[in-house]
Amino acid sequence: MRDYRGDEPTGAVAIERRQGRKLDTLNASTEPKRRLAIGIDLGGTDIKAGLVDEDGNVLAVRRIPTKTESGVNGVLSRFADLVKELETDMPEAGELIGIGLGIPGSIDLHSNRVRACANLEGWENRDIAGELGALLGRPVLIENDANLAAYAEYLHGAGQNVASMMTLTLGTGVGGGTILNGKIWRGADGTASEVGHMIVTSDGRLCGCGQRGCLETYASASSIARIAEERLQSGTESSLRAVQNSGGGITSKIIAEHAANGDNVALDVWNEACRHLAEAIVGLQHVINPGRIILAGGMSAAGPILLDTVRRFVAQLMPGKVGTHPDVQLAQLGNDAGFLGAALLVFNECDAKVEVS
Amino acid sequence: MRDYRGDEPTGAVAIERRQGRKLDTLNASTEPKRRLAIGIDLGGTDIKAGLVDEDGNVLAVRRIPTKTESGVNGVLSRFADLVKELETDMPEAGELIGIGLGIPGSIDLHSNRVRACANLEGWENRDIAGELGALLGRPVLIENDANLAAYAEYLHGAGQNVASMMTLTLGTGVGGGTILNGKIWRGADGTASEVGHMIVTSDGRLCGCGQRGCLETYASASSIARIAEERLQSGTESSLRAVQNSGGGITSKIIAEHAANGDNVALDVWNEACRHLAEAIVGLQHVINPGRIILAGGMSAAGPILLDTVRRFVAQLMPGKVGTHPDVQLAQLGNDAGFLGAALLVFNECDAKVEVS
Repeated sequence: MRDYRGDEPTGAVAIERRQGRKLDTLNASTEPKRRLAIGIDLGGTDIKAGLVDEDGNVLAVRRIPTKTESGVNGVLSRFADLVKELETDMPEAGELIGIGLGIPGSIDLHSNRVRACANLEGWENRDIAGELGALLGRPVLIENDANLAAYAEYLHGAGQNVASMMTLTLGTGVGGGTILNGKIWRGADGTASEVGHMIVTSDGRLCGCGQRGCLETYASASSIARIAEERLQSGTESSLRAVQNSGGGITSKIIAEHAANGDNVALDVWNEACRHLAEAIVGLQHVINPGRIILAGGMSAAGPILLDTVRRFVAQLMPGKVGTHPDVQLAQLGNDAGFLGAALLVFNECDAKVEVS
Repeated sequence: MRDYRGDEPTGAVAIERRQGRKLDTLNASTEPKRRLAIGIDLGGTDIKAGLVDEDGNVLAVRRIPTKTESGVNGVLSRFADLVKELETDMPEAGELIGIGLGIPGSIDLHSNRVRACANLEGWENRDIAGELGALLGRPVLIENDANLAAYAEYLHGAGQNVASMMTLTLGTGVGGGTILNGKIWRGADGTASEVGHMIVTSDGRLCGCGQRGCLETYASASSIARIAEERLQSGTESSLRAVQNSGGGITSKIIAEHAANGDNVALDVWNEACRHLAEAIVGLQHVINPGRIILAGGMSAAGPILLDTVRRFVAQLMPGKVGTHPDVQLAQLGNDAGFLGAALLVFNECDAKVEVS
């Protein structure tokens, strides 16, 4: 169970209601302590954090700007402030057992340091878990943010009732997370689930990673916008041109809307993206055969026009003589998945993985 | 340790030598029983079976024709004969704990029945493990043959010293096996590791599975031969033409040889296959990030011209800004990997997985 949608009561009252017992019972000293964790989701613009219990109930949420210009130490001290603030929301019977931090980059499994963090400067090769742990005097674990979002979906979102699943995180780039038999699959070096860099077309479009034909060059929000702009440059008639002429930028969201309204350029671009997504999904199904494949990230807000189009191409591409048909779904947790997964992982891994210096 | 190469002594003498103790000691009744398993590798033409100990030593091997025309029951009784023959090779101190059977098809994880078996008629939806178990009065497990070959490579071949690895089995088709943290990864339905059906080119060559652009349509032995024949039809000059004119069929082996000798057509076809293999490997590395990726199957006998060419394309395709470089190697166990993996799996899974009716 989780409780962090706007139309649901939050905090201790909600816990009480769901559990059918009174707060004074919950807070009585004879009651066992309620284990809680704080999950932090570090983004390039915002930091989002939540106080979460073992059942995935969110007791409190905070969101502050990242202020990357304050440097790594500045951001670390902002994390510490956030944790202290969220601690004021702790129920009396609560016990904070650790902090989970989602990083938009890869973690070196051997050193537990940040290996690469494309959009944030200075984070590479730092022992962020150790530094924040020392600052807070509490166990801290770090994990790739897309892995955490997948883990949250697995436990409390679109991945419930399957043992293994993958997410494709469709945003500025294309990432992903893999859960196998209930555990995050990190790979031998911690670089697994970089679904965006599967090559879907030989000698295709040049990717920021230096490869050609990566899924990300066709199916990320920024790639879709770029491809639409290229098509408009060729002079084709399109309802997108009015957006461009009004000085508004063309986004994947706008393209999805114009595609839904039948504009040919928008439809072509959207379909091309969905077709390449489907190609990647067919590959993932054949190779990993997860129980579910979940479309997540900002672009998943497009809803049916994303899901239906991807499913249609998957059905076309995969006639079913080999393998089983993938169960493709939309993510359910939106951008709360990051901090939620970070907190939930604490309950399962904190003791084993983290040492405070 | 294993012992099944021609230039090595086999059987009890070899065991004795490696273990530095005398046979009479080994056979003494005070000695604990030596646990043994029989692995059977079912192929369309031959059945290969071996008596194997827990350390991967092969005590005896038998090979007989499959005689598919005898039907499933006929083949099952041939399995039983094989097992009885191999039992005559058991050392006195040996204890046969079970039989592992590798099937060239997929196994339904839920029913433990054969789901699909493309090249053998009548095997689908049969409870082969139960039937053979009843026939022999011993525990029998069944598993996909490529998974078993991967498992053998993991324990005693090219996959030693890594926790997770994948094989790409390059033969008539392209298959594969995946070992994650020492266990065979079968996927949610038992259809994982069908690497040959990753789509490497949008709208590419038509595959037998009904998809287009599958890796298998470019990189299997039969596809390579077919593509070379197509090129020759266009009239291009090539040393392969002499092979064709002499009435000999063009095989992937011949193409590899002519490529090594610098023939342009052979080189083009070989490079195209290796390039597509490299594209798939880059995708596997990004998504699964196994500790090693192993080229196996009949085509791996090509040796350096396969390994070096694939590695060269991987290096070209994957500039390394995202992810880590894959460790690509050749398989070491040849076509003994199948029965060896079948026997070795018995030691690890037999008790848990199999019931004899």
